[in-house]
Amino acid sequence: MSAFSFEILAQDGAARRGVLTTAHGAIDTPAFMPVGTAATVKAMLPESVASTGAQIILGNTYHLMLRPGAERVAAQGGLHRFMNWPSPILTDSGGYQVMSLAALREIDESGVVFRSHLDGSRHTLTPERSIEIQHLLDSDITMAFDECTPFPATLEQARQSMALSMRWAARSREAFRKRPGYGIFGIVQGGVHPALRQSSAARGIDMFDCVLPTRSGRTAQAFTSTGTVNLRNARHADDKDPLDRECGCPACTSYSRAYLHHLCRCGEILASMLLTWHNLHYYGGLMRALRAAIAAGALEDFVAGFHDAQARGRAAA
Amino acid sequence: MSAFSFEILAQDGAARRGVLTTAHGAIDTPAFMPVGTAATVKAMLPESVASTGAQIILGNTYHLMLRPGAERVAAQGGLHRFMNWPSPILTDSGGYQVMSLAALREIDESGVVFRSHLDGSRHTLTPERSIEIQHLLDSDITMAFDECTPFPATLEQARQSMALSMRWAARSREAFRKRPGYGIFGIVQGGVHPALRQSSAARGIDMFDCVLPTRSGRTAQAFTSTGTVNLRNARHADDKDPLDRECGCPACTSYSRAYLHHLCRCGEILASMLLTWHNLHYYGGLMRALRAAIAAGALEDFVAGFHDAQARGRAAA
Repeated sequence: MSAFSFEILAQDGAARRGVLTTAHGAIDTPAFMPVGTAATVKAMLPESVASTGAQIILGNTYHLMLRPGAERVAAQGGLHRFMNWPSPILTDSGGYQVMSLAALREIDESGVVFRSHLDGSRHTLTPERSIEIQHLLDSDITMAFDECTPFPATLEQARQSMALSMRWAARSREAFRKRPGYGIFGIVQGGVHPALRQSSAARGIDMFDCVLPTRSGRTAQAFTSTGTVNLRNARHADDKDPLDRECGCPACTSYSRAYLHHLCRCGEILASMLLTWHNLHYYGGLMRALRAAIAAGALEDFVAGFHDAQARGRAAA
Repeated sequence: MSAFSFEILAQDGAARRGVLTTAHGAIDTPAFMPVGTAATVKAMLPESVASTGAQIILGNTYHLMLRPGAERVAAQGGLHRFMNWPSPILTDSGGYQVMSLAALREIDESGVVFRSHLDGSRHTLTPERSIEIQHLLDSDITMAFDECTPFPATLEQARQSMALSMRWAARSREAFRKRPGYGIFGIVQGGVHPALRQSSAARGIDMFDCVLPTRSGRTAQAFTSTGTVNLRNARHADDKDPLDRECGCPACTSYSRAYLHHLCRCGEILASMLLTWHNLHYYGGLMRALRAAIAAGALEDFVAGFHDAQARGRAAA
């Protein structure tokens, strides 16, 4: 089993191109992580997710602890095996979802008591329990348990929240069981206050996750080389062109915009399947191009070209 | 382009094994046809449908005439190209859906006037228009337009309904444009009255469609070699076994019952995708085994063995 390591291969201004090695494989950075909240990247087979270039996915500790339960996933051989995703997995700490989804939260120095958004049942998350859950899930990258700073928050409130998260981070690191190929990351703190964020972030961002490509895929929004396309729009009803001429994904190589429009109008599951696939393929290609640009020292040109193409698309739309 | 033809390869008692040849390929009979109502077999990529052994799918004239519209599908190159299904397609006549889905039907000798279940808009279906729509869809097998006999119906009512459908069948055949590889089928009439059905059916059944495998796949019901399984049942929550040990589909080779149960409980799209795939794969295998049994003159043993396995499964459940 490989050691958990990060190697920087190239730098271009403030950007860097690296490789993160974990127990379940390597991740080229900068990397985008598709979100697999409930042990599935919604509307995708895991092999299809991999085909978009994704090398790591994110799982949600909060959702998985409630359903199916971390001990149950562990009994099934861990999250990789349970969901048939043999590559790296990062799990969040649950801190964000406890704040955004759960009801009746009580936060103190020890942790958070909350009620499930599913059935109202009472649960406790502490740094120690969050780390244990992520261990049971067999997550390659465990995230430290943090308080999600409320918005708005004064500078003083954000400072206190950050200080609490720093104490929780120390407890999280203490609770983390070291194994070859497994690691624990901290989370940038400071709310919207630049000075606090800077003192917390220090080395920048190599990986990010977002539900935008997957959620948009389920609501008829597609990202393309020439901008965002809403496939519910009636102007696609008779359009024989593919969604994106420059894209090699199944949605673009085998179907017309007219067909995708029809599927979206009918609320067909295949619309979610094809558009999620397309959006993840688009993100995968974008990250690959970004990495190549950084390696070639051509990031500035790449970014300018990207914005030009998007603006041309908006003008043509 | 091949001629439209049907060849009988083997007989076993009342059963027969044949090959139907159409413009878009051959179909081994007896054949099951997955239902692709709105130009998609729900929750399946067309190549996945083909991988289950399906050689023909069914499209619904009523749904497609309302959305996206038959002329629109024709402008897109026909239904095969529109939905990326290069193999044979049979379309129904719309007669059944007009009776089961549409509002405010008025039937007379000329045809049916009805209001769409989608938006209340007014439409007319006659034998001539039904056949034209199926022509526009580029259906390999057009179905004659029939009145769906109401239930209950007296013998006399069923007889009159059958006589109307026979007059409409003559008009349908007249309206059908003959082309190599394309054919038109009648529909068994007579309601639930055996004498009428017998006078209508004559040569038996070589092909059938049903929404059961696809609809059940979206409601956590799976068909297996040992009976029907409801994956919502809590007894699967910790079950590491595959859904069906004897099945080679993606749901059975890559996932546990515990995982499929989890997906069903969470209402995840992947549950519909995997269970629909499994159910169609099961139907495909069943039809393949039936055809082999007929060819080997062993249908009676096959049927007995099938019922035994299902009964053993019920006993073990």
